Amino acid sequence: MIKTDILIIGAGPTGLFTVFEAGLLKLKTHLIDALPQPGGQCSEIYPKKPIYDIPAYPEILAGDLVDRLMEQIKPFEPGFTLGERAETLDKQEDGSFIVTTNKGTKHHAPVVVIAGGLGSFEPRKPLIANIGDYEDKGISYIIKDPEVYRNKKVVIAGGGDSALDWAIYLADVASEVALVHRRNEFRGALDSVEKASELAKLGKIKLFTEAQITELHGKNDLSGVVITYNDKEKDAEYLEVDNFIPLFGLSPKLGPIGSWGLEIEKNAIKVNNAKDYQTNIPGVFAIGDVNTYEGKLKLILSGFHEAAVMCQYAYKIINPDKRFVMKYTTVGGVEGFDGSKKEAKKEVVQSIV
Amino acid sequence: MIKTDILIIGAGPTGLFTVFEAGLLKLKTHLIDALPQPGGQCSEIYPKKPIYDIPAYPEILAGDLVDRLMEQIKPFEPGFTLGERAETLDKQEDGSFIVTTNKGTKHHAPVVVIAGGLGSFEPRKPLIANIGDYEDKGISYIIKDPEVYRNKKVVIAGGGDSALDWAIYLADVASEVALVHRRNEFRGALDSVEKASELAKLGKIKLFTEAQITELHGKNDLSGVVITYNDKEKDAEYLEVDNFIPLFGLSPKLGPIGSWGLEIEKNAIKVNNAKDYQTNIPGVFAIGDVNTYEGKLKLILSGFHEAAVMCQYAYKIINPDKRFVMKYTTVGGVEGFDGSKKEAKKEVVQSIV
Ligand SMILES: Cc1cc2nc3c(=O)[nH]c(=O)nc-3n(C[C@H](O)[C@H](O)[C@H](O)COP(=O)(O)OP(=O)(O)OC[C@H]3O[C@@H](n4cnc5c(N)ncnc54)[C@H](O)[C@@H]3O)c2cc1C
Ligand SMILES: Cc1cc2nc3c(=O)[nH]c(=O)nc-3n(C[C@H](O)[C@H](O)[C@H](O)COP(=O)(O)OP(=O)(O)OC[C@H]3O[C@@H](n4cnc5c(N)ncnc54)[C@H](O)[C@@H]3O)c2cc1C
Repeated sequence: MIKTDILIIGAGPTGLFTVFEAGLLKLKTHLIDALPQPGGQCSEIYPKKPIYDIPAYPEILAGDLVDRLMEQIKPFEPGFTLGERAETLDKQEDGSFIVTTNKGTKHHAPVVVIAGGLGSFEPRKPLIANIGDYEDKGISYIIKDPEVYRNKKVVIAGGGDSALDWAIYLADVASEVALVHRRNEFRGALDSVEKASELAKLGKIKLFTEAQITELHGKNDLSGVVITYNDKEKDAEYLEVDNFIPLFGLSPKLGPIGSWGLEIEKNAIKVNNAKDYQTNIPGVFAIGDVNTYEGKLKLILSGFHEAAVMCQYAYKIINPDKRFVMKYTTVGGVEGFDGSKKEAKKEVVQSIV
Repeated sequence: MIKTDILIIGAGPTGLFTVFEAGLLKLKTHLIDALPQPGGQCSEIYPKKPIYDIPAYPEILAGDLVDRLMEQIKPFEPGFTLGERAETLDKQEDGSFIVTTNKGTKHHAPVVVIAGGLGSFEPRKPLIANIGDYEDKGISYIIKDPEVYRNKKVVIAGGGDSALDWAIYLADVASEVALVHRRNEFRGALDSVEKASELAKLGKIKLFTEAQITELHGKNDLSGVVITYNDKEKDAEYLEVDNFIPLFGLSPKLGPIGSWGLEIEKNAIKVNNAKDYQTNIPGVFAIGDVNTYEGKLKLILSGFHEAAVMCQYAYKIINPDKRFVMKYTTVGGVEGFDGSKKEAKKEVVQSIV
């Protein structure tokens, strides 16, 4: 059992900064994230894109923002359970909580903060009636191990970077690779688009554009698909395949958190922003993109503020009898749990009362 | 008459970032500040001190924070009325406001945001009954022109940097310099403390520690002070002086804003944080250190969040019939009023066949 003061579900920018604010209050933190790396949307969706509205950063790449946050929280030695999804929340008799992941890892804490963003990202599935019948029997939505496709006949659907990049990669691994896309244009990095069209010319990728997969066939495992063109004049084609990999992107789902008894509105958790960002379950807070209240903005800078406010109230729950006098970091410094100490040089203070 | 969309009173970090958030919504801004430079407390009180809790800045000097904010808001070309204090707020028939400074400069805007921090800084005065009688007749709380003290007998009171630094400086200018401090320790830069104690040994500064000035004498102008020791056994001393300069630091005062009909609590302006940070006067918002609500934290990062939220509501007041669809800066870029445009590289869209 992992024990901590504040258990944070979601290691996006909001969850990460919570570690810092909690640390200033001498509270220990542990983060759970379904993704294998911290940073949430910033790391998973747009690490190489610049953000312009982080205060005092005229421009910063999303990935660099995460790196800076990781550096800032380092002195507070947060624990991480990565690549696991928080599945259940169980309130204990003493008011504390046990959160268990899909892999069975248990976490115990007096305060739980949900910083789950848009939720865990789940693959978007094409609308084909019997698709569920072939899942893991030839159909998968994420490529974990490309070796699975060695010498197989593979059809990939999608028009973004992952469809392009995997088609290119598998061209050397699979015996046949087809790429099916609804439109004629691909939304991918220029060199990926060029590489794929080169491989198409060489016959290493079969390209079907302005088309989609409409039927799935196979006795038990998948054995073929029907490709239908947007242009109804053109005949549909039957393609023999071992594997179908739809790569239509990830769509966020609140997921298991949705069934924890929290008040949900617009796929987000309602909180009391007039105060502390606590949910309808006392001791459970929700901050960042995952929460909603009147006037909510899904901005990174709002998650930072919510984290700071929320930690003050978490402190009161964890230390009901202590009073914490907030000191500015400039004045009180930052004392890490790792023994580090950052501190402004004393001399330069002008007295202000 | 200066006209703008959002008139911002206070050019501290909160006021500055408001320019950016307003700019994203295509709203023009103008700032008024009593200080001669932007940056509020960060520039005036601790420009050379590091702050550790600005999100994604493990460490940043307060002055650098202000520089980065100035750089970030530059594309939105804010106007500045510096060195003037906003004195009056007059609501016009059409619901807009005219704000006039102590120098008579008038500003007109449909929305006013008070980002006045702790207010304007006023000198802290020692508690001596008749001190008001000698103000500008030998007593001053700020040294504007040290030449005033040439060949004068000067007594300075205080134990911080400014008391030390001015005592050292005036040792070469005045005919006599005394430095009186309640304690035995000075709170100042190490080298200032050393320099002052050296000058004391040389007899160039008369040092009175664990003592304070308790009486002021003089017919019309100040001519002498009584210095009383903490240790009641020690006799009080009479010192003939031309000037008394108490340097006890600056104490912030809400000032004229306090009489604008705003709901005040704990020397701060009450706002509705459950929503928009609007005050009891519709169209007048209060953000940053100057406002108060349950759970308020006087942190820079909170001012940033409040600015972002507040601008959304200001937009609705200024454009009652338009609907603004918020776009992430990463996605929509930043279009300056100066014609500049920052933008993330678009994912390359290209035809593949
Ligand atoms: C393309 C794009 C551009 C953007 N541009 C900007 C911008 O310019 N400015 C801006 O302020 N914002 C921008 N955003 C939004 C910004 O990324 C989000 O506001 C921010 O990431 C929210 O942070 P968070 O920590 O609250 O949530 P997230 O970043 O979504 O992180 C939440 C984390 O929680 C995890 N999680 C959820 N449920 C569970 C569970 N049950 N178990 C385990 N883990 C779970 C998820 O895996 C995820 O890692 C942009 C977003 C996108 C997609
Ligand atoms: C020594 C010290 C260390 C600090 N350390 C930290 C820290 O580590 N982290 C942190 O988050 N915060 C810290 N703070 C607090 C931080 O500086 C404030 O939260 C921040 O400055 C508030 O910004 P603001 O823009 O709301 O107000 P301010 O910075 O106070 O700016 C308000 C401005 O409004 C002007 N003004 C007021 N009334 C009028 C008027 N009537 N007319 C014209 N102008 C007016 C003032 O002159 C001032 O320039 C510290 C403060 C001090 C003093």
